[in-house]
Amino acid sequence: MANIGGGWLEAQNSRGEIGLVPEDYVEVRPWGTHRPFAAAGNAAPLDLSFFDTHALTPACNACLFLQSNGNDPWAVFDTNASGGFSNNWAAQPEGTETGRTGSSVWGSSAQGHPQAYQGPGADDDEWDDEWDDRKSSYTEGEAGEGGALNRGGQGEVGPVWEYPETQLDCVVADPKKGSKMYGLKSYIEYQVTPNTTNKPVNHRYKHFDWLYERLLDKFGSAIPIPCLPDKQVTGRFEEEFIKMRMERLQAWMSRMCRHPVISSSEVFQLFLTYKDEKDWKMGKRKAEKDETVGVMIFSTIEPEGVPDLDLLEVEQKCEQFSRFTKAMDDGVKDLLTVGQEHWKRCTGPLPKEYQRIGKAFQNLSSVFNSSGYEGEATLTDALTAAGKTYEEIAQMVAEQPRKDLHSLMETNNEYKGLLGCFPETIGVHKAAIEKVKEADKLVATSKITPAEKVTMAKRLSTMSYSLQAEMNHFHNHRIYDYNRVMQLYLEQQVKFYETIAEKLRHAHSQFTTM
Amino acid sequence: MANIGGGWLEAQNSRGEIGLVPEDYVEVRPWGTHRPFAAAGNAAPLDLSFFDTHALTPACNACLFLQSNGNDPWAVFDTNASGGFSNNWAAQPEGTETGRTGSSVWGSSAQGHPQAYQGPGADDDEWDDEWDDRKSSYTEGEAGEGGALNRGGQGEVGPVWEYPETQLDCVVADPKKGSKMYGLKSYIEYQVTPNTTNKPVNHRYKHFDWLYERLLDKFGSAIPIPCLPDKQVTGRFEEEFIKMRMERLQAWMSRMCRHPVISSSEVFQLFLTYKDEKDWKMGKRKAEKDETVGVMIFSTIEPEGVPDLDLLEVEQKCEQFSRFTKAMDDGVKDLLTVGQEHWKRCTGPLPKEYQRIGKAFQNLSSVFNSSGYEGEATLTDALTAAGKTYEEIAQMVAEQPRKDLHSLMETNNEYKGLLGCFPETIGVHKAAIEKVKEADKLVATSKITPAEKVTMAKRLSTMSYSLQAEMNHFHNHRIYDYNRVMQLYLEQQVKFYETIAEKLRHAHSQFTTM
Repeated sequence: MANIGGGWLEAQNSRGEIGLVPEDYVEVRPWGTHRPFAAAGNAAPLDLSFFDTHALTPACNACLFLQSNGNDPWAVFDTNASGGFSNNWAAQPEGTETGRTGSSVWGSSAQGHPQAYQGPGADDDEWDDEWDDRKSSYTEGEAGEGGALNRGGQGEVGPVWEYPETQLDCVVADPKKGSKMYGLKSYIEYQVTPNTTNKPVNHRYKHFDWLYERLLDKFGSAIPIPCLPDKQVTGRFEEEFIKMRMERLQAWMSRMCRHPVISSSEVFQLFLTYKDEKDWKMGKRKAEKDETVGVMIFSTIEPEGVPDLDLLEVEQKCEQFSRFTKAMDDGVKDLLTVGQEHWKRCTGPLPKEYQRIGKAFQNLSSVFNSSGYEGEATLTDALTAAGKTYEEIAQMVAEQPRKDLHSLMETNNEYKGLLGCFPETIGVHKAAIEKVKEADKLVATSKITPAEKVTMAKRLSTMSYSLQAEMNHFHNHRIYDYNRVMQLYLEQQVKFYETIAEKLRHAHSQFTTM
Repeated sequence: MANIGGGWLEAQNSRGEIGLVPEDYVEVRPWGTHRPFAAAGNAAPLDLSFFDTHALTPACNACLFLQSNGNDPWAVFDTNASGGFSNNWAAQPEGTETGRTGSSVWGSSAQGHPQAYQGPGADDDEWDDEWDDRKSSYTEGEAGEGGALNRGGQGEVGPVWEYPETQLDCVVADPKKGSKMYGLKSYIEYQVTPNTTNKPVNHRYKHFDWLYERLLDKFGSAIPIPCLPDKQVTGRFEEEFIKMRMERLQAWMSRMCRHPVISSSEVFQLFLTYKDEKDWKMGKRKAEKDETVGVMIFSTIEPEGVPDLDLLEVEQKCEQFSRFTKAMDDGVKDLLTVGQEHWKRCTGPLPKEYQRIGKAFQNLSSVFNSSGYEGEATLTDALTAAGKTYEEIAQMVAEQPRKDLHSLMETNNEYKGLLGCFPETIGVHKAAIEKVKEADKLVATSKITPAEKVTMAKRLSTMSYSLQAEMNHFHNHRIYDYNRVMQLYLEQQVKFYETIAEKLRHAHSQFTTM
């Protein structure tokens, strides 16, 4: 057992697995003031684990809620569901004897989800890395101060992440078929080139998936990590599929790059800038051993020079974000439904109808052409041209969704994915709020000390600052993304209608009644 | 019994009805050369009635064929149907003893249709009017010589009607509710103002219907007289219905005005220019006594300075017109079907979809507005504006068919009506052709004299010239009408797409990623 700092001890369980155990399970050692998430002394194991009600699984965050709360990922925010939550807690076995300690961070799991911790214990150096150097901090003030992505003159937005001076970005391109095992297994490899090194690295989909799971483990409690584009086994070498997957991986990577906490993380940097196969393998092993996962991420966050938030304010903020993300989730899904139907119509019945109009004009033209009447040519030529114009319009209509609706749908799909992560994140906060609400009773029944209560409130304040910073990050990017995608959509729509008008104007000019 | 000229005698039948009887039934008196349709001397009654196989009923011409030839009005042109036609002829009773004489023109009816003649016998003055003064004539040459409606530099088109220097036209407007029988019966009266007198006359729908029946009786064998807009009993005072009926009566009247033979007829002039109620009543009575109805119209037509056409040429022309009108009928019906479906989509699911897109944008805007994030206003305003734009587009889409598709549909509906008349007209010609083909056999069996055979061929030639003139009239107007309606349609389509593009351009300008 080794003290790795931050209130944690590295321990080996009965199955030989190495993991972190809260040192309170063994001895009392309060965190320093610069470590707001340090466990309070002498607290019961249950209390110390109070931020750990939602251990993360390597799956889409929203799914966790589907498992425990039926089909509605938002049901957990109902008062009843919240009650059920507490019951789970109450039923939770106490102490290290649960056999979960070895795979638990911030104590044992209340929900019975698989734990985030997966590999052998981290060494001290790595812990220090994560704890001392990789700390993010808040800055109170205008979003415009936050960094490269704070666009436009926004007013007071509250806590924001500290943004890097230069925004990281990368290009996912050039998908190539690779093979191993003497060609028995083949796969698609994408070239990923970050703007920092400008040196491409190769990654398969499963590498992206590995990265996704690392980010989810590490940041999922504080930052929504959207799912990767779906896995697909059949037809995965089809050109169209590869192109679409690449586009979505690009969007996913760009979003991760734009997040200051994620983009500066070691695992993300490894993914983008590993030097060679050996470097990659070593980095992978190290990342898999990372212990700063789950709610532990909050221990790396230190609000600087700001007062602790009181419970009411925290609760109000949390409620507001919850309501907003739920409402936006509904709005986005509605838009997606409408868009899908419009897509179907634009690629199905509508162009068929324009084609039939076009054919009807051309048919009439050839009938007229058979009249044997002199001086028919101008009309028949014009009718044929009009008919062909409507056939062209039919094709334009069918192709248009790819030009405009596509990006609108992709952006909204991305946001649907992001929004699906919020119930998890907000759930962690709500659980923490509930626990702090119980603090007086716990003090009264001597379950915790008054000092521990203060620490709990401090932690909650930090979590709230973190949530606010994340919401501000979300809002800021949302405003940019929706402005951008609406511009793209409307630009293409304008072009579409202008082109049709122009084509019809030309068709019109060929008819004459002089 | 009075000899009224033209090979006809006024006679009274056993029921006291007065009508025309071919004078050959009584005595031989050949027509002069200036009357090419005069009956040849000594011909058997059957032969003299050979152009009278299709007596006209006061119903849409196309319907007659539906009655006698199943559901396909074109079936009469099949070889079998044509054969059946001859059989009917063979079975036809000869002589005046059929009891049909009194109500027959050009002999007795072969088909058993109700006869055109309906009222008491005409007096001599009236007959002379019809016969001597109202004669139309051919001019061989360019359509441009024909009159005001010969538009554009068309080449040689063959026989054309003689067109008046000033084209008659009229305005149907100002529908007013009238009543009679102390308000027990109410009706709608339209004001019809011809460009010749510029004096409005009032007519109810039933007056138009009366005119239609007169024109059908009189000209239907040579000129397609399209049906009036449908009668409708329920809801006939609804504004929308009255407006639509007026529009269609206007279109019908304009088409009739544009036809040189119809527009110059006494009955048509009466309808447009009667001075008072007494004048109208007297004119009505006179028109109802008009005997120049059915195929008798051909006796008023005299091709001037042109050679007789041979059988082969007549047959070829007739076949060509038959094929063309059939093909155009198909083409027009196809376009109408396509147009109806497009109309449905434009007024049904499509605007609903645009509305839903608009609502989705506005919904997202109000969600964003609830974010509590500063600097959201530009995006939410822009999203709301974009949403409203799509709602406006929805309304535009729904209203558009009335602006463009409507006129295209109305014109094609008019042509569908016109084309429905051609099987009847062409049927008369085909029957005549068949009869002339039999002429050699009839001469060989002494059923007719060689001189009669020559007369029959002459008549057929005149009929063919008449059909050609009518087809040229049809083609000429068709070219104008389709050019015009396509211009209107495309003009409105261009405006529609331009307006949408402009609206979207404005919506686009409100988004910003600066």
